Amino acid sequence: MENRNQGGSEAAGFTQLLAQWISTVDDEAIGPDAFIWARHAMLDWISVSLAAANEPLVEMLAAEYAGSRDLPCSLLGRTARANPLEAALINGSAGHALDFDDVASSMYGHPTVPVAPAALAQAQVQNASGRALLRALIVGHEIESRVGEVLGASHYQQGFHVTGTVGTLGAAAACAALRQLDATATSHALGLAATQAAGLKCMFGTMAKPLHAGKAAMNGLMAAQLAARGFTAQAGAIECEQGFALTQAPAPNAFPAFLDTGRGMAIERTLFKYHASCYLTHSTIEAIGQARRNHGVGLDDMESATIVVTGHHRGVCDNPNPQTGLAVKFAVQHLAALALDGAATSSLALFADSTALDPRYVRARQRIALVVEPGGDRNAATVTIRTRDGRELREQANVAIPATDLGAQWERLVAKSRAIVTPVIGPVRFGKLVAAVQALDRSPSVNSLFEAMQ
Amino acid sequence: MENRNQGGSEAAGFTQLLAQWISTVDDEAIGPDAFIWARHAMLDWISVSLAAANEPLVEMLAAEYAGSRDLPCSLLGRTARANPLEAALINGSAGHALDFDDVASSMYGHPTVPVAPAALAQAQVQNASGRALLRALIVGHEIESRVGEVLGASHYQQGFHVTGTVGTLGAAAACAALRQLDATATSHALGLAATQAAGLKCMFGTMAKPLHAGKAAMNGLMAAQLAARGFTAQAGAIECEQGFALTQAPAPNAFPAFLDTGRGMAIERTLFKYHASCYLTHSTIEAIGQARRNHGVGLDDMESATIVVTGHHRGVCDNPNPQTGLAVKFAVQHLAALALDGAATSSLALFADSTALDPRYVRARQRIALVVEPGGDRNAATVTIRTRDGRELREQANVAIPATDLGAQWERLVAKSRAIVTPVIGPVRFGKLVAAVQALDRSPSVNSLFEAMQ
Repeated sequence: MENRNQGGSEAAGFTQLLAQWISTVDDEAIGPDAFIWARHAMLDWISVSLAAANEPLVEMLAAEYAGSRDLPCSLLGRTARANPLEAALINGSAGHALDFDDVASSMYGHPTVPVAPAALAQAQVQNASGRALLRALIVGHEIESRVGEVLGASHYQQGFHVTGTVGTLGAAAACAALRQLDATATSHALGLAATQAAGLKCMFGTMAKPLHAGKAAMNGLMAAQLAARGFTAQAGAIECEQGFALTQAPAPNAFPAFLDTGRGMAIERTLFKYHASCYLTHSTIEAIGQARRNHGVGLDDMESATIVVTGHHRGVCDNPNPQTGLAVKFAVQHLAALALDGAATSSLALFADSTALDPRYVRARQRIALVVEPGGDRNAATVTIRTRDGRELREQANVAIPATDLGAQWERLVAKSRAIVTPVIGPVRFGKLVAAVQALDRSPSVNSLFEAMQ
Repeated sequence: MENRNQGGSEAAGFTQLLAQWISTVDDEAIGPDAFIWARHAMLDWISVSLAAANEPLVEMLAAEYAGSRDLPCSLLGRTARANPLEAALINGSAGHALDFDDVASSMYGHPTVPVAPAALAQAQVQNASGRALLRALIVGHEIESRVGEVLGASHYQQGFHVTGTVGTLGAAAACAALRQLDATATSHALGLAATQAAGLKCMFGTMAKPLHAGKAAMNGLMAAQLAARGFTAQAGAIECEQGFALTQAPAPNAFPAFLDTGRGMAIERTLFKYHASCYLTHSTIEAIGQARRNHGVGLDDMESATIVVTGHHRGVCDNPNPQTGLAVKFAVQHLAALALDGAATSSLALFADSTALDPRYVRARQRIALVVEPGGDRNAATVTIRTRDGRELREQANVAIPATDLGAQWERLVAKSRAIVTPVIGPVRFGKLVAAVQALDRSPSVNSLFEAMQ
């Protein structure tokens, strides 16, 4: 329980490798596509955060920690402002309140929600450019992916909420990049993030789950603030004995000796949620959307249908008889009926109790069978629709495959944003927000985002 | 990665047992001695925090997070003030900066430093009485002890800094008690603390170690603030599957079915540090102090000496040839020479480089043998002094045994406080501070502490 000295001295390793990369990466190495993806992630994160502005947990956080309008940082969907740490906390928790934010397979979690609010708060303090903010988001995603890959599935299986733990390091990396910290200070920022990383999976189903994202943003920002002042941490915080990996991931993967960027940036593999329901139902909804587009069918054409998915659905989204709007989010047969009817599954308003009790969907869902097969890709679904005129239409989808048509992805994200944001800020400010995000990498100041929403 | 609902519903268990105790315990159950111990712990914590006010890590935290004089919470040794979370962070980190704060065997960590700053910040916000603050400190110690006993040694051995992790729950418990939260809200506060608990042992030797104490205070306070607003967490956060214990302690002990308070309050077993050196050297210094008192010997009487300790000293405090003041803290032979000479080992000023190089002590330490034996109590030491006039004096000490003479303990704590605090606030304010702590359980407001130091 003693301090022999106050400076770290571990031999260089994985943490130093990441710090070196963060402190030296330039736009050429990042490449132009990653900046497009970063705009997509930013639009989606702002949208899901705005849509949650009035959620009880966000109201509680704002009541406790928001302050006067002369404070430096903006809060999404509020006129009150906050100091940087509190802004990261409130905006970060809001972004995860609906569980409608993006996903990264390599991280095993939600990549944007811990990083964007920390980077935005830091960017406002230093009046950074839009491009600097996007670059920070790209850096944060990359660190989350690299650390997530090393920790592997065992960290999640041990009971840690990766968005909270690894997200802290992503947020610290993004803020270190914005502040242009050198490699040494950046490694201390990563260490200070690693030693604050927390979040238990047993909290799923409580308000603490979105709080993890807010705390990751807040703690990562704090790590960079302190490292910028000369605060020290263990230089090998992630990989060393009694470090982050070995204390919290029983079976980590090997630490890479160099960072291979041949696959492009991690942000280019981000997966977005387009439906306000359980993520496991999304491939089913997508497959039915394909059937509508490819074959011109609707709910009235359906005689019966079968959904084939993997065992992960069991006990999560296989409720055959939902009675509330919330339960519909976890009822794949009911969702299939809605999707075949062309309902707006991205709209939060769809998930009202009246939707659960609508006789049209109650009748239809009884004719949709769910077949759960063991193994396979947890995100894939195969839907077979038998029509009244005797056709049998089969479609497959897998939402875990990143998009390749970025123009189409942007259009889908704008449509999702319109569905969830317009009820909060109206159509005029919605239009200005989309334009501001579209133009973000040419904007001299991140404040353009907030001017658009005023 | 979905929220099915936003309220916890785990069956009652250990977490609920603690919450029930926190929300119902009264002064009769606590007993009068615990309040005496709480004053002792408070004097010691304020003293080690004041003594660290100018440490670089505290200056960095204050520069980043302290604010104007109209903010609600005081910072020890500063005229600047702060909001509650930031006050808990800065005061908490200051209290552990010198590693001179108290210890609890049952917790496996430092009990007061995460709890006192959180409770003090909360007490200032609500202008609580001195007795309410002392009660909160007693409650925080109790929860740290109970949780520490359940996690057992495996939590520390896994690589977690218990002061940071379990300390978060202690701070939350203390603040919940101050706010008089009911059992349900208190259990949410404990859950919100458990899911924020963090701190890696690999950070020992860096500024991140004292930061853990500050973050525990800050996060525990936040847990109580949010729980008071209705924020939810998993009701079985400590004991449930993928909860705090099972994710971070590979071999926890059994969860008790009821809380046995037959041993008195945990705070009554607090161990204080009276020497500004590595804790493992303290029994040696104490044994030599006994030899001075019992036999009237000093350094000039020593022909040679032998220190017998356990294997835990190896590589920690067995430096035979220290060259700096810092190294002297981990050099038990040099410390033994200082102690036999009657040097003020509680004084931080003693640990200057000149002390390491003083020929009088350099010569003496060469005649002091260190014998490390395997096993045994890590805190015990046996010292044999052979005098120039042919006597062989043997003394044993074990600083891990709590004091029984509380009057003598208070005198020792006042003497330690005088040695480290007078250089910072001068003798007049030091005297007022001691009187204010002495009178704390009769004080209508905790602000009496700060009025004394003005």
